[in-house]
Amino acid sequence: MQDKILLGHGSGGQLMNELINGLIKETFGSDSLQLDDSAILTIAGQKLAFTTDTFTITPIFFPGGNIGELAINGTVNDLAVMGATPRFISSAFILEEGFEISLLKEIIASMKRVADYAGVKIVTGDTKVVEKGKADKIFINTSGIGVMEFPLQRRDIEEGDIVIINGSIADHGISVMAERNGFSFSKGLLSDCAPLNHLIAAAVRACPDGIKFMRDATRGGVASVLNEVVQQTPFSVKLLEEKLPVKDEVKGVCDILGIDPLYAANEGKVLAIVKKKDAEKVLEAMKSVKEGENAAIIGEITRQYPGKVFVETAIGGKRLLALLIEEQLPRIC
Amino acid sequence: MQDKILLGHGSGGQLMNELINGLIKETFGSDSLQLDDSAILTIAGQKLAFTTDTFTITPIFFPGGNIGELAINGTVNDLAVMGATPRFISSAFILEEGFEISLLKEIIASMKRVADYAGVKIVTGDTKVVEKGKADKIFINTSGIGVMEFPLQRRDIEEGDIVIINGSIADHGISVMAERNGFSFSKGLLSDCAPLNHLIAAAVRACPDGIKFMRDATRGGVASVLNEVVQQTPFSVKLLEEKLPVKDEVKGVCDILGIDPLYAANEGKVLAIVKKKDAEKVLEAMKSVKEGENAAIIGEITRQYPGKVFVETAIGGKRLLALLIEEQLPRIC
Repeated sequence: MQDKILLGHGSGGQLMNELINGLIKETFGSDSLQLDDSAILTIAGQKLAFTTDTFTITPIFFPGGNIGELAINGTVNDLAVMGATPRFISSAFILEEGFEISLLKEIIASMKRVADYAGVKIVTGDTKVVEKGKADKIFINTSGIGVMEFPLQRRDIEEGDIVIINGSIADHGISVMAERNGFSFSKGLLSDCAPLNHLIAAAVRACPDGIKFMRDATRGGVASVLNEVVQQTPFSVKLLEEKLPVKDEVKGVCDILGIDPLYAANEGKVLAIVKKKDAEKVLEAMKSVKEGENAAIIGEITRQYPGKVFVETAIGGKRLLALLIEEQLPRIC
Repeated sequence: MQDKILLGHGSGGQLMNELINGLIKETFGSDSLQLDDSAILTIAGQKLAFTTDTFTITPIFFPGGNIGELAINGTVNDLAVMGATPRFISSAFILEEGFEISLLKEIIASMKRVADYAGVKIVTGDTKVVEKGKADKIFINTSGIGVMEFPLQRRDIEEGDIVIINGSIADHGISVMAERNGFSFSKGLLSDCAPLNHLIAAAVRACPDGIKFMRDATRGGVASVLNEVVQQTPFSVKLLEEKLPVKDEVKGVCDILGIDPLYAANEGKVLAIVKKKDAEKVLEAMKSVKEGENAAIIGEITRQYPGKVFVETAIGGKRLLALLIEEQLPRIC
């Protein structure tokens, strides 16, 4: 292990896994820290999900959202993918001395708006201020509690299972990168930042036994989530290139910056692995909700390359998607 | 209101109150944000306490503790003062690129140690990394969930009620300031950083009906907590100067730096307001626990100066302790 923290330690890839597994988890104890999106707690017989996430995105305002919306939606989504109904959220600010109060006001107003839309209450908070130059404008931590009302049973994946995503890939990561680089041609490009709890509830209600796995594809993108699913299993994920919903504007920015959209962050996209016979039903349920209008089947579980994720092109070419080692997009959330 | 964030907005004083009441609370809605140390939630008939706190202290290692211990103890204490048994904690790191992994390791090991002592589990976490110069080494957010097993009934204060503290005042704030200033004569001075849940449980169990209010005296110190208690009431707090437990080393540093120990942060001290007839019983219960060995009666509720806190000297002199407006000790927690 390195002796100093690198940007890649926050990337959602292999360096971060090493840090978390090799240091944090080892110290806190395996019975203590739960490495899923949320911990599942039982209190007085009631199962709850509990999660935390810190947001350090730059720029703090980006096309389609701001750090405050992201902070609410991100935590709502981490609860929702566990099968919990998000209920209560905390909001803790680190503010840099000199930060504009008018911007803080705008951020807080957005947090309230998206919290209302998601149906969660912001119930407790904290504010710290550090000297100019000791933070970057504003960092926000949100922690959340959800009630396990429709727990998603993790089921073993099998050959033939179907991979579904609720819409276009990489919009968040690429719109933020376009903004940072001042690309004028990417005008229509917006972050997909959205709460997914309504979508997930609709999918699970429609097909409680058919969904085997759900995870929002944030840092590290679609490729990272799917790598985690098949790692150390005899299965692989085959993605069909022509089925991958990637907007033309996103493709354009990716080409210029040399970024693979499959590794770019999403903030309103969830991957589901579903029994083959239930795939259409889940797809329809997703499409019935605003956040899933463009849901699509993008691949399937095979046994071709055990433990690997790969993309197959229309003419049968194959490209392996390795687990991300280093950060490609620092501070994307 | 100012148009830019000042260090004082994080001080625990009047500027911070303005920011929280005038902006955050107004936006989130009064039914949403709860301004106590923890929010009280009811889930499936069970009352829970939920709290969040971010730690940005500098230096991150100080006499008697480090930022990790502080992060666990602070959140444990915010739950305990509500009458909750702290159970589950989240831990979210913001790391500055280049931060020494060996220091992170040491911090994490301390977190585990104090969590074990307090009887809480660290169940979920998050790690973000920002570029060198965009944060200051390490910031930690902890959020916590407690079960309301012995809810502290807030009761109206009355003339004659007794003010108790569980030990010496200002140790944390002053030992950190001494460290920052490189004072060599303050060698024996240590932060009081400690979890208070065992102490509070002992006090409440000993005297469930006698305790009217409890609050840990962190940012803004003893004076700030007591000001909040009597603000907009017909009562005042009279503190007896000769009863205030302040260590000689603390007095020495305070004299040099021009700091009033009554406004300095504590990280292991709780104030209790207790019915007169129960004061000795609560005091004894506190003294039976390690964190309360030096508990003392320091004052009483009077009607002399409605809404104010004041110190009376041995010869009858009086000094008002106004609500803190600006930061005296930035980044003390």
